[in-house]
Parts: sequence; C-alpha cells; structure tokens
Amino acid sequence: MPEQQDQQNDLERTTSQTSTVSVETPQGEAQQEPELSVPEYVRTLVTRARSASSKLASLSSHVKNQALLAMAEALEAKVEDILAENEKDLAAYGENPEKQASADRLKLTPERIAEMARGVRAVANLPDPLGSMPKMWTRPNGMQVGRVRVPIGVIGIIYESRPNVTVDSAVLCLKSGNVCVLRGGSDAIQTNRMLAKILSDTADAQGIPPGAISFVDRPDREVVEELLKQDRDVDLIIPRGGPSLMKTVAEHATIPVLKHDEGVCHVYVDQDADLAMAETICLNAKVQRPSTCNAMEGLLVNQVVARTFLPALVNKLHEAGVEVRGCPKTLQLCPDVKPAAEDDFGKEFLSRILAVRIVKHLDEALDHIAKYGSRHTEAIVTNDYARAMRFLREVDASAVMVNASTRLNDGYQFGLGAEIGISTSRIHARGPMGLEELTCSKFIVMGSGQIRE
Amino acid sequence: MPEQQDQQNDLERTTSQTSTVSVETPQGEAQQEPELSVPEYVRTLVTRARSASSKLASLSSHVKNQALLAMAEALEAKVEDILAENEKDLAAYGENPEKQASADRLKLTPERIAEMARGVRAVANLPDPLGSMPKMWTRPNGMQVGRVRVPIGVIGIIYESRPNVTVDSAVLCLKSGNVCVLRGGSDAIQTNRMLAKILSDTADAQGIPPGAISFVDRPDREVVEELLKQDRDVDLIIPRGGPSLMKTVAEHATIPVLKHDEGVCHVYVDQDADLAMAETICLNAKVQRPSTCNAMEGLLVNQVVARTFLPALVNKLHEAGVEVRGCPKTLQLCPDVKPAAEDDFGKEFLSRILAVRIVKHLDEALDHIAKYGSRHTEAIVTNDYARAMRFLREVDASAVMVNASTRLNDGYQFGLGAEIGISTSRIHARGPMGLEELTCSKFIVMGSGQIRE
Repeated sequence: MPEQQDQQNDLERTTSQTSTVSVETPQGEAQQEPELSVPEYVRTLVTRARSASSKLASLSSHVKNQALLAMAEALEAKVEDILAENEKDLAAYGENPEKQASADRLKLTPERIAEMARGVRAVANLPDPLGSMPKMWTRPNGMQVGRVRVPIGVIGIIYESRPNVTVDSAVLCLKSGNVCVLRGGSDAIQTNRMLAKILSDTADAQGIPPGAISFVDRPDREVVEELLKQDRDVDLIIPRGGPSLMKTVAEHATIPVLKHDEGVCHVYVDQDADLAMAETICLNAKVQRPSTCNAMEGLLVNQVVARTFLPALVNKLHEAGVEVRGCPKTLQLCPDVKPAAEDDFGKEFLSRILAVRIVKHLDEALDHIAKYGSRHTEAIVTNDYARAMRFLREVDASAVMVNASTRLNDGYQFGLGAEIGISTSRIHARGPMGLEELTCSKFIVMGSGQIRE
Repeated sequence: MPEQQDQQNDLERTTSQTSTVSVETPQGEAQQEPELSVPEYVRTLVTRARSASSKLASLSSHVKNQALLAMAEALEAKVEDILAENEKDLAAYGENPEKQASADRLKLTPERIAEMARGVRAVANLPDPLGSMPKMWTRPNGMQVGRVRVPIGVIGIIYESRPNVTVDSAVLCLKSGNVCVLRGGSDAIQTNRMLAKILSDTADAQGIPPGAISFVDRPDREVVEELLKQDRDVDLIIPRGGPSLMKTVAEHATIPVLKHDEGVCHVYVDQDADLAMAETICLNAKVQRPSTCNAMEGLLVNQVVARTFLPALVNKLHEAGVEVRGCPKTLQLCPDVKPAAEDDFGKEFLSRILAVRIVKHLDEALDHIAKYGSRHTEAIVTNDYARAMRFLREVDASAVMVNASTRLNDGYQFGLGAEIGISTSRIHARGPMGLEELTCSKFIVMGSGQIRE
C-alpha cells in the first residue's frame, strides 16, 4: 500500500554529505572506489541497466519465478542483517518526536520482513503479464495483425522511506520483465541498500542478468536530477512521494512520468443514504489507516441528514482520535468541532484530521469534489439509483465508488494482485498499477507479401 | 498519415514578428485586441479549454456525430475560403526551391479538401470509444468492480505544416471527448487558422462547448514553451515533428508527452526469402511514399542472397529515383552505388535515399536494428519459420513484421480506423494511435457497504 511523505528532507541533502560512496561494480560487489562525478555515476548505472534490459525481457516465466522464490527465501534467511541496517537508519532519526510518524514507517520487524517475503512469493504465483496476445485479426488483404505484451524496459522508481517499496518495486519489475533503478529516501538508505543487495545478489545467482535490480547508492539530490534526464536509457519514471518530490520530477524529467500523487479523497453522504452504512464507511475510510493516499480527507454530508447523522459520527471520530474541522453549519450541529480554515478543504492530511462540510444537494457535492479533490478516489453513500449513477458518471477520479470505503481502491482489493502504487496519471495506467500496467505492447504482423497500395 | 518535418524554421521564429495578433475571444470571434503577454494568452486559452472539457466528456455520441457531419459539410462549403488562405501561406514560401517539398505538403487542392471531409465523415461513423466497460467482476466481499473508458481531458497537439493534421486532430479529439489545443506550424498558420475557425464555429453551432477546438493563433516559439508548462489544465501533449521540436518538448514539458518521433525503419532480407516478394516489399517500403515515418530507411541483406538479389533491386531503385548508399560489400556487387558514410545508417532520410548493408546472418541484422533502428517499424522477409519467430520476438519496435511492407504500420491498414499518428512512446499507446488510445480509464465500484478489513 502506498503511503506518502514529503521528501523535503531528502531533496535538501547535498553532495557535501558524501565524500566517498560505495559504488556497485559490474560484478555486483560493493567497494570503496575513487568517487565518480554524479553524471558519471548515473551514466554507469543506467548503461548497465539498459544492457540488462533486452536479456531480461526474453527470460522465461520459470526462470523469473525461481529467482523470485529464491529472493523470498533470502529475505527470510537474512532477517538479522536487515534489522541491523534498519537500526542504523532508525538511530539516525534520534528521538525527534516530529519525525516519529516517519520513523514508524521506516521501522522493520521480523514480522514485517516475513510479510515482504510472503509478498514476493505472491508475485511469483501471479500470471506472467508478458507475451499475451488477446486477439489476432486478419485484414482484407490477408495480413494478420496482433498486439503482444512486452516490458516497458528500464523503470526508475523514486520513492520515500518505506523500505517495503524497495522489495515490492524490484519484484514487480522483475516479474514484468522490466529493469528497475531504485532510488529510495536517504532516511532509509542503509535498510534499502541491504534489501537491494540481498535481492540483486540472489537474482544474479539465479541467472537474472546483472543490473536488472539496480540500486542508486547515493543520497545526493543531484543524482535524482541526473537520473531524470536519462531519456536514452530509462523509459519511465514512477515517483512516489510528497509535493516537493513531484515538483522536482516535473521540472527535471525528460523521461515519461507516471505520477503517484496525493490523494484528497471524499465521501459524500446523500440524503437517501443508509446512515448506519454511511457511518461504517466513513469511520473505515478515515481511521483504518489514515496515512494512506486512499484515506478520506474530506466528508460531505447532505443537509437533510446532517442533524441525524453528523453528531453521532463526530463523537465516534473523536473517540478514534480524529480531529474534526467543520464548516459553519457543521459547527452549529456539533459545537465540539473545530472551525475549518478554507485551506483545510483540499488538503491531504495523511493523519487523523478530517474536514467536514454540509452541502445542499448532489450538485454542490460534485462541485466541491471537482474543485478540491485530487482525482484519486471518491465515494457516495446512497440508496438513490439516479444519484448513484450520476456520481459514477460525472466524478472524474481513478476510482469512483458507491457504498464502499475509499480504502478499497487498491490492487489486491480490486483483485488485480500486487501493485506498485495507485497512479494518478491520466495516461497509461490510472488507479492501482499492477503487473499488466508495467507492460507496453508491440504490434506483430504476419504477412505473405502484402504492400501498401 | 504522419509525415515528419524539421520545425527548425518554426521554432526559430520570435515574438518580434508579431506585434499585434488576433485573439480568439470566448465568443469565438476574432478581433484585434491589445496584445496579451504570452503567459496571459496561453492561460486564457487553456483555462477556456479546461472549462469545455467536463461538458464535452458528457455529450452523447449522437450530438458529437451530428457536429462531425456538419463539420464535414462546412469544409466542403468553404473550399474557396480555405484555398484563399492556403494561397497566402504558399505565397510566403516564394520560389525557394529548397522548400519545395514543404510547400508540396502545405498545398491544398479542392480534392485534398474533399478528402479531409471524407475523413471527418469516416470518424463520425466509427464507434464511440467512451463508456465501454469490457468486463465487471465481483470480489469475494460482493463488491463489483469495472473499468470504464473516459476521455483523457485536454490534449495539446504540436505539429508541423501539413494542414490536414488540424482537421484530423480536431475530429479525433472531439469524437473521443477530448478538448484539443492545436498548435500548427507557422508556415501554415493562415490555412490552419481558417480550418480551425470553420471546425470550431460549426461545432459551437451544433452544441459542442466553446473552446472544445482551441487554436493557438500565435506563431511565437514562446507560446509553445508556455503551453508545455500548463500541467494544471493540459493533460497530454502529442508532438508531431522533427528533432528540434522533440528537443523543445522534452526540455520544457511538465505535462505527459506521447512522442511521435522519427522512424528509422529497416527491411531484412533473409537467406530464405522469396526474392520476388522481397523486391516488391523493398520497393514499396522505400518509394510508395518516402516522406513518411514508416518508409524504409535501411535495407539489410543476408550475404547468401546478396549477389542474386541486390543488383537487380538497386537497378529498380535507381529507376525509381532512389539514391542508394551501400556498405563496402554492397559496392563490390553494385559498383554504381555510392559509398555509405557511417552516419547514413540510422538516419531518417524521409526522401529517396536508402542505406544498404550486407550482413552475415540474422544476429548481425538484429544487432544492426537494435543499434540503428528507432523502434518504429521493422520487417523481415523470410520463409524460415524459426527465424521469422525469432525476429518477431526479439525486435523491439512499435510494429514488427514478417513478409509485409513497413508502410503498412498504420491505423487504417491495421483496421483500427483513423489515427492521430504513430506513437513511438513506450507507455500508453505504441504504434498507430486511434480513438481508443485517446482515452484513459476510471475504475467504478458498486458496493453494498464494503469496508477495508
């Protein structure tokens, strides 16, 4: 599951922090070497990644799956090594209480590592997305045309500090025949380096071409900027992080980018809602895991049911530790709610804060969502057929839901399997991005001498 | 059909050439107004485009098709007006013989305009790509999930001087529910302005929201750079042009880009080719329309058949006015061929020039294609099953063909209908880009109270 975190800290780091850095050699061994310049370092890394790409694309499913299963075992076998590196990252955090939420995300336990290994095995068991050609058709001139799934190529993944992203990205890319170039947050660099080394060494030993799992072992911001310009050797960038990372990527990338951007998700409780269902959905959408991009950040309640519905819900939200910030009408009904500032609407809190607004009708709710939503996940709770259909049709988001929690916008929940995140792009992949979304297609033509007339 | 042309001339124009420019007002009337700054002009244009977008997305197929049919009629009714504007553009070219090829592409005739109108009617007759949901599935918790086709939103199309691109882009975008922002080459600005006005006025009169067909009525290069940064209101950029346009787009775009880049396409004649078929295919791929991106630029011939095959083919190519540039082995067999310079391999000539190389075996051909090809269209001529399959599997290109002319990589030829061009991107759409490729998807969920456990 994607979580989001502002990368301000990462991005403000400068080269001055690293005088010499261990460089992954083509043999896969880390050594102290005279430091390469940032452009040299990045060129070396992506050239090796590109050269792995065509070999990886032609590997059989069997070879890839064997490698994945071995990677799962290796993670389990090296739990102590991983935890030791994770301790170093955590120690660097110190006791700063402001960073406690980030530290929680960063912290690994034997159970979390076992969960990673289970995730790797689950990907091994998914069908190979490559090579499928759902149909082939014959043109009037006898030429047969089909469209076959092929890997995208080399994918750069730039992400924040949750170390499981290192594992998820590496295995989804490997399974889909893509080389990954992983650039995690500098807060987690010790943990990520160890995870990448375990995965990469195991892959190499299983016949996966060296470089197929490439790890950017430098925390400098300049490395990211340089990576974003490697349009010759990197085919796609998937950024997962906060606004400052997104800004850096938009400004510097000459490579196509699939955004995994913020989630400002709403639930609209209609006048014809089943109010018990609405309460269950709202509580789930807000508190089941508030730090995720598909958690509810804004609640819209139709004025007809506000008096019946809101005070009880607000009590339960307060009990769950949620700070509720309301519009003036909400304050009239629930005096213990804090007044919402204008910029609380449209804000991605990623925490136990919720903005609430009472609206006159569906149109006002739709306008609010169009204005403040981030086109990620939007839900209506209603038993009115016409309004349910209007909401599904008119709301523009990666997922639009009737009578379900926004938290269900997820690859596993939709039945698509493991995902690399929830794309907020309007091209290629929108919503949960699984194995199929990590592929592109090529046309193949089987002719018998056809020419253009 | 996409043709390519270096936009050097366009891009080197500066604002100094335009002191006052007619500005399309929200009412759709062109007037002389005090000139807006470039950022103001672009903001006004894209804000209007964005506001048209959600209305356009919800129009019925019937309304869109009626508008398209009316647009076809309007083009036919205004032939004289279009030709008059086209004359002005042509007059600006003067008699410069170097620009004759561009002038030919720019020149309209009553027949070419009739062809445009036929194209518009053909698009009206294609199925609406929006709203389809090929399947909906039910999850174990009873939640139903489906994926429905929706428009991308606002698409900026930046292209060279062929005026039919104005019409093709406008009608394909309209049919697929997308607002288009058209920025054609300055060489064709009078013609393009008239075409856009006819289409836009007709669309407005048919109930299409104003701004749905937006035309950038300024030749300044700065306008392109500004347009490329409107990531809030423009969802996708499709550039169609030469290397200098592509460079500008890569450097300045903060919006996703689907490249329609150069085509360096090869035909490989295998030792087991039907040589008569190979000759027909090679002649077609080179001379049927040399200025297109799917024309052959490089010919690879297996050494076993070179002596039998090449001299006769070279004669026919010479008869067709093709300048053949060969590797040293080719020169031995065909003394009347010019020696190829190293950079002739991998060059997109877009004219009657062909680079020829004799290779030892399939591996050498595959290496040559991987090194010099632009991943656009690649063909093998062979009767050997194993080598045909290897070529299809191993060559990375938008279309890979056995025993067919590269010129067949085309939306109509593949049976996909009208296309906006041939995408060389590795995401979203690769190869001919028709109506379906101008859409994205959103997930819809029909629940009965499901939450995340």
